[in-house]
Amino acid sequence: MSLLDPLFRWEAVDRHFTDHARLQGMLDFEAALARAEASTGVIPAAAAPAIAAKCRAELFDASAIALAAAPAGGPAIPLVKQLTALVAKADAEAARFVHWGATSQDAIDTGFVLQSRSALALIQAECARLADALAKLARMHSATPLAARTWMQQALPTTFGFIAAGWLDAVQRSSDRLADSARRALVLQFGGAVGTLAALGGHGLDVARALGADLQLPMPDLPWHAHRDRMAELAAALALLTGTLGKIARDISLHMQTEVGEIFEPAGEGRGGSSTMPHKRNPVVCASVLSAAARVPALASTMLSAMVQENERGLGGWHAEWETLPEIFQLTGGALHHLTDAVCGLEIDAAKMAANLDVTHGLIFAEAVQMALAPALGRLPAHDLVQAAAQRAIAEKRPLKDVLAADRHVSTHLPKAELDRLFDPLQYLGSAQAFIDRVLASHAARGKKSSGPGG
Amino acid sequence: MSLLDPLFRWEAVDRHFTDHARLQGMLDFEAALARAEASTGVIPAAAAPAIAAKCRAELFDASAIALAAAPAGGPAIPLVKQLTALVAKADAEAARFVHWGATSQDAIDTGFVLQSRSALALIQAECARLADALAKLARMHSATPLAARTWMQQALPTTFGFIAAGWLDAVQRSSDRLADSARRALVLQFGGAVGTLAALGGHGLDVARALGADLQLPMPDLPWHAHRDRMAELAAALALLTGTLGKIARDISLHMQTEVGEIFEPAGEGRGGSSTMPHKRNPVVCASVLSAAARVPALASTMLSAMVQENERGLGGWHAEWETLPEIFQLTGGALHHLTDAVCGLEIDAAKMAANLDVTHGLIFAEAVQMALAPALGRLPAHDLVQAAAQRAIAEKRPLKDVLAADRHVSTHLPKAELDRLFDPLQYLGSAQAFIDRVLASHAARGKKSSGPGG
Amino acid sequence: MSLLDPLFRWEAVDRHFTDHARLQGMLDFEAALARAEASTGVIPAAAAPAIAAKCRAELFDASAIALAAAPAGGPAIPLVKQLTALVAKADAEAARFVHWGATSQDAIDTGFVLQSRSALALIQAECARLADALAKLARMHSATPLAARTWMQQALPTTFGFIAAGWLDAVQRSSDRLADSARRALVLQFGGAVGTLAALGGHGLDVARALGADLQLPMPDLPWHAHRDRMAELAAALALLTGTLGKIARDISLHMQTEVGEIFEPAGEGRGGSSTMPHKRNPVVCASVLSAAARVPALASTMLSAMVQENERGLGGWHAEWETLPEIFQLTGGALHHLTDAVCGLEIDAAKMAANLDVTHGLIFAEAVQMALAPALGRLPAHDLVQAAAQRAIAEKRPLKDVLAADRHVSTHLPKAELDRLFDPLQYLGSAQAFIDRVLASHAARGKKSSGPGG
Amino acid sequence: MSLLDPLFRWEAVDRHFTDHARLQGMLDFEAALARAEASTGVIPAAAAPAIAAKCRAELFDASAIALAAAPAGGPAIPLVKQLTALVAKADAEAARFVHWGATSQDAIDTGFVLQSRSALALIQAECARLADALAKLARMHSATPLAARTWMQQALPTTFGFIAAGWLDAVQRSSDRLADSARRALVLQFGGAVGTLAALGGHGLDVARALGADLQLPMPDLPWHAHRDRMAELAAALALLTGTLGKIARDISLHMQTEVGEIFEPAGEGRGGSSTMPHKRNPVVCASVLSAAARVPALASTMLSAMVQENERGLGGWHAEWETLPEIFQLTGGALHHLTDAVCGLEIDAAKMAANLDVTHGLIFAEAVQMALAPALGRLPAHDLVQAAAQRAIAEKRPLKDVLAADRHVSTHLPKAELDRLFDPLQYLGSAQAFIDRVLASHAARGKKSSGPGG
Repeated sequence: MSLLDPLFRWEAVDRHFTDHARLQGMLDFEAALARAEASTGVIPAAAAPAIAAKCRAELFDASAIALAAAPAGGPAIPLVKQLTALVAKADAEAARFVHWGATSQDAIDTGFVLQSRSALALIQAECARLADALAKLARMHSATPLAARTWMQQALPTTFGFIAAGWLDAVQRSSDRLADSARRALVLQFGGAVGTLAALGGHGLDVARALGADLQLPMPDLPWHAHRDRMAELAAALALLTGTLGKIARDISLHMQTEVGEIFEPAGEGRGGSSTMPHKRNPVVCASVLSAAARVPALASTMLSAMVQENERGLGGWHAEWETLPEIFQLTGGALHHLTDAVCGLEIDAAKMAANLDVTHGLIFAEAVQMALAPALGRLPAHDLVQAAAQRAIAEKRPLKDVLAADRHVSTHLPKAELDRLFDPLQYLGSAQAFIDRVLASHAARGKKSSGPGG
Repeated sequence: MSLLDPLFRWEAVDRHFTDHARLQGMLDFEAALARAEASTGVIPAAAAPAIAAKCRAELFDASAIALAAAPAGGPAIPLVKQLTALVAKADAEAARFVHWGATSQDAIDTGFVLQSRSALALIQAECARLADALAKLARMHSATPLAARTWMQQALPTTFGFIAAGWLDAVQRSSDRLADSARRALVLQFGGAVGTLAALGGHGLDVARALGADLQLPMPDLPWHAHRDRMAELAAALALLTGTLGKIARDISLHMQTEVGEIFEPAGEGRGGSSTMPHKRNPVVCASVLSAAARVPALASTMLSAMVQENERGLGGWHAEWETLPEIFQLTGGALHHLTDAVCGLEIDAAKMAANLDVTHGLIFAEAVQMALAPALGRLPAHDLVQAAAQRAIAEKRPLKDVLAADRHVSTHLPKAELDRLFDPLQYLGSAQAFIDRVLASHAARGKKSSGPGG
Repeated sequence: MSLLDPLFRWEAVDRHFTDHARLQGMLDFEAALARAEASTGVIPAAAAPAIAAKCRAELFDASAIALAAAPAGGPAIPLVKQLTALVAKADAEAARFVHWGATSQDAIDTGFVLQSRSALALIQAECARLADALAKLARMHSATPLAARTWMQQALPTTFGFIAAGWLDAVQRSSDRLADSARRALVLQFGGAVGTLAALGGHGLDVARALGADLQLPMPDLPWHAHRDRMAELAAALALLTGTLGKIARDISLHMQTEVGEIFEPAGEGRGGSSTMPHKRNPVVCASVLSAAARVPALASTMLSAMVQENERGLGGWHAEWETLPEIFQLTGGALHHLTDAVCGLEIDAAKMAANLDVTHGLIFAEAVQMALAPALGRLPAHDLVQAAAQRAIAEKRPLKDVLAADRHVSTHLPKAELDRLFDPLQYLGSAQAFIDRVLASHAARGKKSSGPGG
Repeated sequence: MSLLDPLFRWEAVDRHFTDHARLQGMLDFEAALARAEASTGVIPAAAAPAIAAKCRAELFDASAIALAAAPAGGPAIPLVKQLTALVAKADAEAARFVHWGATSQDAIDTGFVLQSRSALALIQAECARLADALAKLARMHSATPLAARTWMQQALPTTFGFIAAGWLDAVQRSSDRLADSARRALVLQFGGAVGTLAALGGHGLDVARALGADLQLPMPDLPWHAHRDRMAELAAALALLTGTLGKIARDISLHMQTEVGEIFEPAGEGRGGSSTMPHKRNPVVCASVLSAAARVPALASTMLSAMVQENERGLGGWHAEWETLPEIFQLTGGALHHLTDAVCGLEIDAAKMAANLDVTHGLIFAEAVQMALAPALGRLPAHDLVQAAAQRAIAEKRPLKDVLAADRHVSTHLPKAELDRLFDPLQYLGSAQAFIDRVLASHAARGKKSSGPGG
């Protein structure tokens, strides 16, 4: 664990991108390869268990591999050498068949696909936890009014449930996208030195099929050594999720400002406090999530620009992925996990929300009044009348409702009770509830789908 | 047309992102909104045709809108003002109902979605043309051997058909991705000032449904004013395509180098030539495509980082999209179109490919010999024997085959005819043909699907 | 003028990056080249005026150049062809010496350097205008207290003058950086086809010196066709300025929020208002500046990643600069100009600043009280006492001062007058004024320097 | 050491960015702060040594700090807590004065500046080593001809010395830039909670001056908590260096292609070889350097976009720097170190360079012949004559020289000896040597300057 890991990352995802996990990913490939080649008669049946027995990362000297990776241009060749030596100690004959017909990129890419598959499953589960928490907020606060802000200015009333439903809607789209990209990206890499599986003669496809079946990875139409769109798509899908997480964190941090004070990250010992500034409650989770949202887009652009790789296996572009994509997984995982925790414990101050709706002394309801007057006066006269009243309210620092109530043109058409109603935020919410219901229905439908056998 | 447009862009796509197209996109929204509101009884029936009649971009003063867009923070408010004035001249009553209940972002976003839909259809069609050209190359050159290069070094033989099939495979994945993202992204934006459609009272959803139907755009569960993942996903999908185009261009430019000389962009008057350097044939299409592949990833990262928008409608992040996403469409469209043209006219020098296979004096076949000797000698002894022969061949600058033929250990197991066979590149292609066939089958299946009634 | 130019750009800078300016930049190179070659006897003396006479962009058919630029891979070759034809009409002999010994990149790069030089001068002047406006604010508001916010939470008091001085300090650094990068980047490009000036035989350096003198551009040690750090450094320096502008805009937009209401962009007809939401005052300049700050970093990364160019003149990387660096200039120029205007007219609501200092009911002064009690009580007991009082104040919703005043441990050490003083924000500003003075002194020193003869 | 560190990084630089180094950086700040405050009478004289004695990273529990950093929002608060506890064990009175008047960001930023200063010194020294190696190549190969390539096509002859001088020129500019940015960026950060040093009353500037003197860091005009241009400029300067390294690596990898074979990374045990492909010599250093050049630009864009920080101390943007800037240092350092090693051992195959000059059968000399014929025939007739000859040479696959020699128009003006001279690459190098000399003179001047007392 490095100094900033607990702040920025999530251990459950990180575990899939340690050096150990990287080695194990490649070793899982090597073991499965041996089994697949034994089952198709390409190597002796006895070689497979002998090889597979040594495919455990804890048997390897990671430092030695690291040192040898520099001159070799990557960790796979030194790993295979160590594996061969380990197997040879127990079974010299089997050692001859280690990594048979494969290239180092087959091991590295397939290994990484295996790491990604597990990490994505965790991320999807955490997305579901976040979605559930947001759905709960959307339901619970569907009638909790607050000021909607546009351009960082109060605009009209909305409800916190509507805001939460918007967050939920976006999280669900990201979850769909992850599923789409996983379906396309999480496939076997197996092509040998130049993609043709030449060293396997006529047995290439049989081995590939058996290998895919062993690892439960679909076999692509053709090896993709220098075609990196699969990995770049994973990066993009994760970056899209992180963008949504950043948007939610931005919102929370804005609502949590001292002068706004409507929504708060959960409190806790040592959490965002300051001993000398007792009023402070720093949105530390937001800081972490916003930091991820500031970093992941650029990392995704590296994955995209690194796609321009040379010939059958590229130079440098592929290498640029090795730390970049794991970093994207880790930062996305960390932001997702921390934000989910925060959303689960979010504190909502409905009273402050209501109070803030009054900050403009009723100007926020001008549109509602105007719409109510329009049928009688016509839209333009209604607009002019309300605008004049608003200007008077601002100039005289009086509540707009009082100014309007004193206006005979208004009182003719809008009796006091009606005017009161127009200044009730819950009366000017349009289709907010209907939109919330639509999002919750989608959420419920997903829940049913994912709890089914296909899960 | 600006000075660099023909070099970097494609007029057919660009046409969708001119100022005129942008205005028309918003006006199409306004016209459809009026019809939808008339059909649901929200505005008088007569207002709709009166408004729609003026929703033609050529009636508007774009310069005046541009100048007013600076203080207004965008072009929609000045456009609506001009539209209202235009309608008012013909029908003062109808003018009252222009833009009824909508917000400027509804017009801008939906307008952009409409522009994107047309542009994406063109891009998809051009992807299909590129795929067809690549499929033709894959079929035609499935037995045209050349040296596969890995790490920018000759590795083993492959065929140009295999390379073309790899390109095709990647283009097809990008086309699928575009379809996925279009399905998710190309939806209606309609929420009014803060997303609740408050100004429409209880009629919001009815109007939204009618509006979506009119524009043939699905209605999302909830307006997405400050949730920009839809637009960012379009950017990512286009960037993934551009990455693949860049990879193909990189390959072509490498094959086209003076010393390699295997593949050439089509020649032509004024095309990449130099009057004082008659041997030069500059890969100008590659330059243009590589340039796009260098630019689009960063533009995509802007779309991703701009997702962190504030509250119900954001400040600056949304504005950052307005020129960035059109630029991505244009650069991707241009790269795709120019590369497709180049691929359609690609010149293949099979003789030079064959000659280059001989550059290493047969060392490229060392693995093949080693695999052939392995059953008899064991893998390690075979490896050592071939390695020693290779070193001798390098030191004495003799063809490896001659060195091997002179080696009694080799001739025992490999008679001359067999040795000749091992130095035939077509004999060491493994599953290349099978992989090509798989990709072509996928291509054929897509062709069938897309020629069906659903298009 | 395109639809979004007035919103995002500044006409004075834009003028340097039109197609016309691009052509003129190259033509200025060609005219100066002819003069330099005539003066060094490389071409006939009479050729220079004949060539220079035609080096006026308005004589050229930009559309024809644009169309020819696509197959030629850039605009220079078609431009030179048109120029040669134009010269030939008047003087066939002179036409033979057009573009003598130069390569297209010499014209494109030097032309762009000339465009950049003028644009940078404008940007520097505007930086100075912004700095002056900020210096005025720093002086004027050095005793205007408001709440400093950290982590988007009120922390301690500061003054608006201190904030403005911080902005000024950063703008000045950016101005220095622009000067440094201009000194390094704005040099002649002149190397001929491969950088050696081979076509000029032994006269290369003489011509280069004369050419540099004519254009008032330093001559670099060696041509820099494929070494693009000069252009990328310009991009980085502009991006650093834009980052600072974005930071200032972020601050203004936060201070301008409805609930905060301390600082406002200047008001004006059609400026950020909403007819139906009369209380709204959208920070439209901030939107534009923040949009630039979201876009320019990615564009700068394109310039950086495009540096990896091939051999003596690259493929694609160079082309990627052609629109990217102008875009950076334009967006930076636009953000700078709009923000400078806004800062010049910034409205400061000192009363609201004072009121917001009271939002925490005095908790913001807890540290000041603690520091005052520490000498007598010890730091830890002082801290504990104040913390307990703060918690009581929060729980009982009472002003911290009242809670403290009622505490005998406090009143012993802090008489009422002293307590009042501690709750005066102007009494807890530490070195704020000294820091302001330091920044203003730097500003004054720069003013003197830049008004000197060296300018 | 992680698995990919030796491949991508340089231990000497990495050592400055470990967790240990990060803690020590902050502790160096804390120790110096105590000394500065003691020397100015702000804290008791005895407190300083008591505090400084514990400011050794090895005394701290990094894991505990890491875990506490998550709720605290960063490592400084938990570090200060541990430090206070450690000091208290030995001297309870001194413990009261730990971190006196400072904010966590003061420790983090100043600590990072200290880490950067050491790392930059190493990087500058390595730049000098690279420059020396390049200067040696430029001198040694000033008369080693090879084909210059533009647009990835052979163009005209050049010398390898000229190429090396171009590389050297760019490295020197990057070194200057690093020095400029270090001068501006490596300054003290010390402002207390909101930048005003309020907690130090009237002693703020005195302490700051003493602190800066102790750490040998200049004191800035004003604290820069939320103004991050200093850190972003470091990132940009490092990225510019990495871009140049990437350009050099791109060149080497192109020259090292099997068909080109002109320049090679040094060979060595386990270095870029393949057991089954004996002819392969993978450019592994280029892969590593190109990978850095693909990653650092995006990381730099994160630093630039993270500049948009809120108010007096930002949320998320600052946090985004914590891992990004160290990563930039590490990748740049690694690329620089590995490339320097490779350049020191670069193998040049002058014979292959000469052979490649013949690949076009003399077409590469067409311009030279044309320039030689122009005075006699006029430029256009000379051009037409040579072009016709070139076309004949291509069509008949004959050397251009033979075609020309057989042409009576040519032989009249160019006797055989002269024609031979024109096909000698060393005769068509223009000012190549003069340019090399200029760059070497700059290099020598720098050497003198940096070996002077100011170093």
